[in-house]
Amino acid sequence: MREVFHDQLESIFGDLAAICSQVETAVSDATSALLTGDAEVAERVISADRAIDEARTRVEETAFSLLSLQAPVAGDLRVVVAALRMVTELERMGDLSVHVAKIARLRVPNIAVPAQIRPTIARMAEVAEDMVSRVKDVITSRDITAALAVGKDDEEMDSLRRLSFTELLSDSWTDGVEAAVDVALLGRYYERIADHAVSVANRVVFVVTGEYPQALRA
Amino acid sequence: MREVFHDQLESIFGDLAAICSQVETAVSDATSALLTGDAEVAERVISADRAIDEARTRVEETAFSLLSLQAPVAGDLRVVVAALRMVTELERMGDLSVHVAKIARLRVPNIAVPAQIRPTIARMAEVAEDMVSRVKDVITSRDITAALAVGKDDEEMDSLRRLSFTELLSDSWTDGVEAAVDVALLGRYYERIADHAVSVANRVVFVVTGEYPQALRA
Repeated sequence: MREVFHDQLESIFGDLAAICSQVETAVSDATSALLTGDAEVAERVISADRAIDEARTRVEETAFSLLSLQAPVAGDLRVVVAALRMVTELERMGDLSVHVAKIARLRVPNIAVPAQIRPTIARMAEVAEDMVSRVKDVITSRDITAALAVGKDDEEMDSLRRLSFTELLSDSWTDGVEAAVDVALLGRYYERIADHAVSVANRVVFVVTGEYPQALRA
Repeated sequence: MREVFHDQLESIFGDLAAICSQVETAVSDATSALLTGDAEVAERVISADRAIDEARTRVEETAFSLLSLQAPVAGDLRVVVAALRMVTELERMGDLSVHVAKIARLRVPNIAVPAQIRPTIARMAEVAEDMVSRVKDVITSRDITAALAVGKDDEEMDSLRRLSFTELLSDSWTDGVEAAVDVALLGRYYERIADHAVSVANRVVFVVTGEYPQALRA
């Protein structure tokens, strides 16, 4: 019984890593659409989101069937519920990539992000994509040190977000209100992708150790 | 056994309604801080969020103990997992109220929302608060018609959000970049509060009927 449980759990984690890989592509493509103004790539992100939603539904069904048939208790139960939460968060990261792609599409043939702030937004995108990529590896490896390191990157994301506000609100901002609003929302979307990445990584720590990182540090 | 299960489930739903009531206060106070520039009220929202987080943890513990001790299957299992998701969403609505309060606090003694767009933002806030209030009733009454009606209000929120962008980006916008960025983010926060309200209402429909509204309509 326990062996069946653990095989099915492994299969769920395999599916989570696969979804995380789809999210990684979504973040990367959305950023590429954003920074090049490529409408076709933006459309690809938007239409690919359906596959992420479907994959999420499949993981949920597998997790429910595992809960129903194996009736896990204590730690095992919490691991399955953690997996259900991870898939919700991964799906949300896909939605946020769609939001980025939609801003890119809205401004075609122009580029939503003005040249003066492009380095900051490009770096935010890079940090987000790197975090998603590392979360994908963490889901597979269950490496706690690597999982905890994802949280460290979130600090860079926070300071990039502050930097973007400083740039937007400085006297040298000459790109007007529309671009400022786009950039503020883009910053919010990348920040949320990063937040979810940290949360998924923390859930992997929980799955391995039975404790969330906050408690681990305390 | 089943009776114990249903008593405990009722107790969880009572806790969810209580948390929703705390969220209603958070949304209302955050809006009041925002539209009057009252730093004290903003601080109250920020410090009250801790109680929402703690209430969420208690509901989660109760739900886990219910899952462990009663090992519900099929529909009952899905109801408990739906409750776990509802509490996550309610807690998130509290966080979004904190974001609104923080923008209010940042601009004290000024008011973050310029007079020309205040009616639109005030109406978004009103719609959001009303949705939260109705969701609270829906959690208690389990009234499907009332739950489905929450989704209707979300359409007004979407058109208010579009209106706010039209106002921000019109030639008559004379309040500059900082106010525009604040308003764009505030619009996003209220929109997300509304999205979560709809989602919680839909989960109540699921709890009662075993189907999510999308499937009900299909």
